[in-house]
Amino acid sequence: MKPQVDTVAILGLGLIGGSLAKALRKSGFCRRVIGYGHREPSLRRGLELGVIDAFTLDLGEAINTADIIVICTPTLVAAEVLGEILPQTQAMAEPPLITDAASVKGSLRDAALRICGEFPAYLVLGHPIAGSERSGVEAAKADLYNNHRVILTPVPQNDAAAVARVHAMWLATGADVVEMTVDRHDAVLAATSHLPHLLAYSLVDALAQSAESDEIFRCAAGGFRDFTRIASSDPVMWRDIAIANRSALLQAIDLFSNHLGQLRQAVSEEDAEGLHATFTRAKTARDDFARILADRGQGKPN
Amino acid sequence: MKPQVDTVAILGLGLIGGSLAKALRKSGFCRRVIGYGHREPSLRRGLELGVIDAFTLDLGEAINTADIIVICTPTLVAAEVLGEILPQTQAMAEPPLITDAASVKGSLRDAALRICGEFPAYLVLGHPIAGSERSGVEAAKADLYNNHRVILTPVPQNDAAAVARVHAMWLATGADVVEMTVDRHDAVLAATSHLPHLLAYSLVDALAQSAESDEIFRCAAGGFRDFTRIASSDPVMWRDIAIANRSALLQAIDLFSNHLGQLRQAVSEEDAEGLHATFTRAKTARDDFARILADRGQGKPN
Repeated sequence: MKPQVDTVAILGLGLIGGSLAKALRKSGFCRRVIGYGHREPSLRRGLELGVIDAFTLDLGEAINTADIIVICTPTLVAAEVLGEILPQTQAMAEPPLITDAASVKGSLRDAALRICGEFPAYLVLGHPIAGSERSGVEAAKADLYNNHRVILTPVPQNDAAAVARVHAMWLATGADVVEMTVDRHDAVLAATSHLPHLLAYSLVDALAQSAESDEIFRCAAGGFRDFTRIASSDPVMWRDIAIANRSALLQAIDLFSNHLGQLRQAVSEEDAEGLHATFTRAKTARDDFARILADRGQGKPN
Repeated sequence: MKPQVDTVAILGLGLIGGSLAKALRKSGFCRRVIGYGHREPSLRRGLELGVIDAFTLDLGEAINTADIIVICTPTLVAAEVLGEILPQTQAMAEPPLITDAASVKGSLRDAALRICGEFPAYLVLGHPIAGSERSGVEAAKADLYNNHRVILTPVPQNDAAAVARVHAMWLATGADVVEMTVDRHDAVLAATSHLPHLLAYSLVDALAQSAESDEIFRCAAGGFRDFTRIASSDPVMWRDIAIANRSALLQAIDLFSNHLGQLRQAVSEEDAEGLHATFTRAKTARDDFARILADRGQGKPN
C-alpha cells in the first residue's frame, strides 16, 4: 500500500503513543514514524525496540518534518504541549496536522482557544478508547487499537480534509472511528470511565478507613476484585482527568447519587418490586453491553 | 480417613449445595451425603451426576437420618426452611446439627428466635464466600471452597461442640474458616459485596435510562465491563439479600455516599492534593487486597 503521508511524529512514547507508532508502521499508512520528547532514554529505547524509525529532541525539527503530529501525553500535559506547539504552527503557511489521544477534550479545546484566539483548522482532537494495565513503550503493541473505538471530536472551525486524514490514520490501526461533539464526548466518558473510577476509588478508600478494614479486605472475594480493579489505576493520571473533566464529572456524580438515593429509599422501605425492577433493567442493559463488546472481539460475553 | 459423621443432608442442590456435597464426599468427612428438597428432577440429576449418594423428598426422613443438615437455599428461602425444620427438631431429644450457607445472617438469627423463642444450641449459622457466574447442580465442583473463606457466626447460646463440628466440615472442603459475630458478618458483607452490587446496578440503570444511553454503552470498554460485571447477577437473589440485610446495607450506603460527597467537593474545588491523596490511599489498599487474594491462590494479582 502506498503511504498516504510521509512522516507521523509521536509526542509521548508510552503505551498509547508506542502502540500507535507500531500500528502505523505495520499498516504502511506513512513512510516513517518519528518520536519527539524531552527524555532521550525512552526515545532511544523506542528506536531499539523498532517502535519508531527515528527520533528528535528538537520540537522545531518535529514540527517542520511531520505531516501529522500526534500528542500522546496525559491530559494536562497535552494542554501544555499545545502551548509549546501552537504558537509555532500558527505562523506557518502549511502547518502540520495536529491531533491527540487525551481522555478529556473540552479542556484541550479551551486551551487551544486561549492560545490561538480562534480554534486552529488543522487541530483535530481525538481519543482512542483503549488501554492496558501495563504502561510504557515496552508494553506497546501493534494491535492495541484493533476493533477498539476511537472518538474524534471535530469542531465547525476544522478543515474537513484534516478531519478525514486523522480518521484515515486511525482506520489504518484497525480502530472503529466515530465522531461526536466535544461536550458529548466528555459526558459519555464521564459516565463510562471517569465516574466509575471515582466510585471505585471512593469505595475502596471508605472501606480502608473504616474500623473493620482488616476484616473487610480479608473477607472480600473475586467480585470485589473485579469491581475495584480500576481503583488500582495511576492516581496522578486520574487526578488530572477528574480536574480536566470537572464539569461533566460533577454532572455524572449527581446523576448517579440521585439514582443511588432512590435505590436507598427502596431498600429502606423494603420495596421488593422496585428493587427487582431496577436490578432487572440493569442486568438486561449490562448483558446487552457485554454482548456488544464480545461481538466486537473484546473478550468473553460476561 | 475415618468418617467424622455418618450422614450430611443438603437442602437445596444448586451450585453451593452441590459443590459442598462433592467436596464432602471427596474428603471422606462423612459416610454419605443425601439431598433433600421438593424438586425430584434436580435431586435425581444430582444422584446421576454422582453429587449425592441418595435423596429424599420427605423432610422428616432427612431430619431423622442426618447428623448435619446444611440449608443451601437463597437467603429468604432459608428463613422459610428454618420455619419448617425447627418446629420438628425442637421436639427431638437429639436433634441433628443444622447450619446454612446464606448471604445474610441477622435475618436468619431473628427467624430462629421468632420460631423457637430462644436460639437453638444446635443451629450454627455460616456463610461460604464463594460462588461462580454459573449456577445449578451441573456447575457444582468439589474444589469450589478450596482456599476460600467460610465465615461462621456462632452465638452465645450455641453448643461449642456443634460449632466445632461445622468448623470441621468446612475445613474438610479445603476452606479457610473464620468466626465473627452475626452483626459483624452482615456489616462486612454489606461493605464488600452487597453495597458493590447495589452500586453496579445503580450505575448501569442510571446510564441505561439516560438520553445518551446508546452512545454510552457503545463507547464503554473493558474497565466498565469489569466494574459492572456484578450488575449481571440474578435480580431475585439480590433483591432478597438487599431486604434481608437492610439495616447494614443502609449504613454501608450512607458511609459510601458521605465519602463520595467529599470526593465530589474535591472535584468541584479542583483540590488536586485532596484527590491525589484519596486516589493514592485507595490504590494502595486495592493493590494490597489483590495481593492477599493472589497469595490465597485466587487469581492473578490485579
